[in-house]
Amino acid sequence: MRVVLASASPARLSILRAAGVDPLVEVSAVDEDALLAAIPDATPAEKVTTLAGAKATTVARRIDLADAVVIGCDSMLHVGGELVGRPADAAQARQRWRAMAGGTGELVTGHAVLRVVGGEIDRVAEGHAVTVVRFGDPTDAELDAYLDTGEPMQVAGGFTLDALGGWFVEGVDGDPSNVVGLSLPLVRRLLVGVGVQVTDLWRQD
Amino acid sequence: MRVVLASASPARLSILRAAGVDPLVEVSAVDEDALLAAIPDATPAEKVTTLAGAKATTVARRIDLADAVVIGCDSMLHVGGELVGRPADAAQARQRWRAMAGGTGELVTGHAVLRVVGGEIDRVAEGHAVTVVRFGDPTDAELDAYLDTGEPMQVAGGFTLDALGGWFVEGVDGDPSNVVGLSLPLVRRLLVGVGVQVTDLWRQD
Repeated sequence: MRVVLASASPARLSILRAAGVDPLVEVSAVDEDALLAAIPDATPAEKVTTLAGAKATTVARRIDLADAVVIGCDSMLHVGGELVGRPADAAQARQRWRAMAGGTGELVTGHAVLRVVGGEIDRVAEGHAVTVVRFGDPTDAELDAYLDTGEPMQVAGGFTLDALGGWFVEGVDGDPSNVVGLSLPLVRRLLVGVGVQVTDLWRQD
Repeated sequence: MRVVLASASPARLSILRAAGVDPLVEVSAVDEDALLAAIPDATPAEKVTTLAGAKATTVARRIDLADAVVIGCDSMLHVGGELVGRPADAAQARQRWRAMAGGTGELVTGHAVLRVVGGEIDRVAEGHAVTVVRFGDPTDAELDAYLDTGEPMQVAGGFTLDALGGWFVEGVDGDPSNVVGLSLPLVRRLLVGVGVQVTDLWRQD
């Protein structure tokens, strides 16, 4: 049974690899904006779960594998009453950091796990998890240095937990892997939902 | 200015590297048991901070660097009223997991940051951080598979957050890097205490 990660995120791939699973990576070409426009009244949890499901389904239909598990993912930061993705540029990243420094946000990740048997989608499990993030308060000089690295402009919410941004996150309440974009305990539960025990997916080395 | 990590832990080195710092690694040969025996009434926080300080000081005196920052670290899991380190064997790891599954523990990490100027220890900052860990509830088959990997016997408390054990941790309350053994936000503050801004330690790539 192959594991397929339906995401281009290097951070998600790193988490899975560190946790013993070597997935194939297949990136879906889902039109996220169009999908979100179709569900304007959805909650943040519904939005990320819908996107994760669409990505996983697209990939599951494209791959040519008889026996596989496909993991779809989508993450957004809920902060100051709005859902934010990647900052458009350094100016927007700075503005957001100034607003969220010393405060909290909610990182919402949705997952869909699809079990492919005989080349067909056999079972589906979906869910989401929320982790509260408590932001630190970088000085002006630190924020300048952080923006100069380019990292904030590449990630939802303009921060990371597992890279340079980790210096500026005081703590979380919830699953930290969820903040990075792939919640290990949630995926473990969803795998059970499609009849798979996660330890059977661990590489043998 | 060189950064020196006074720890043999690959997980601590990984965290620092992912967070933009490439340290030298110099492992101290502190007799931890003897040190702890000398402070029997110390709190968990005092114990890990004392050990971190002893490790960093030993390394700072040994290295031959004019201009450096030395980071010392020590971590313990406080669970069920006792402080636990690495399990002695698989049987003890299984017993501990059975006791802590579905419950919580407190991961306590102490750090000492020493500023070396002109080859001498110039300034010192010490502190500790506590992160609550909420353990999942692995099935017997999952726990067997986890013990078979050997991972639990190599780490304090018999679990990891950033490797295979991450599937079995439901969440944390506090800084997750503290659980892995190197608290980025705490080290950032201690660096300020010795007059160093963390972003000045980031590699330039």
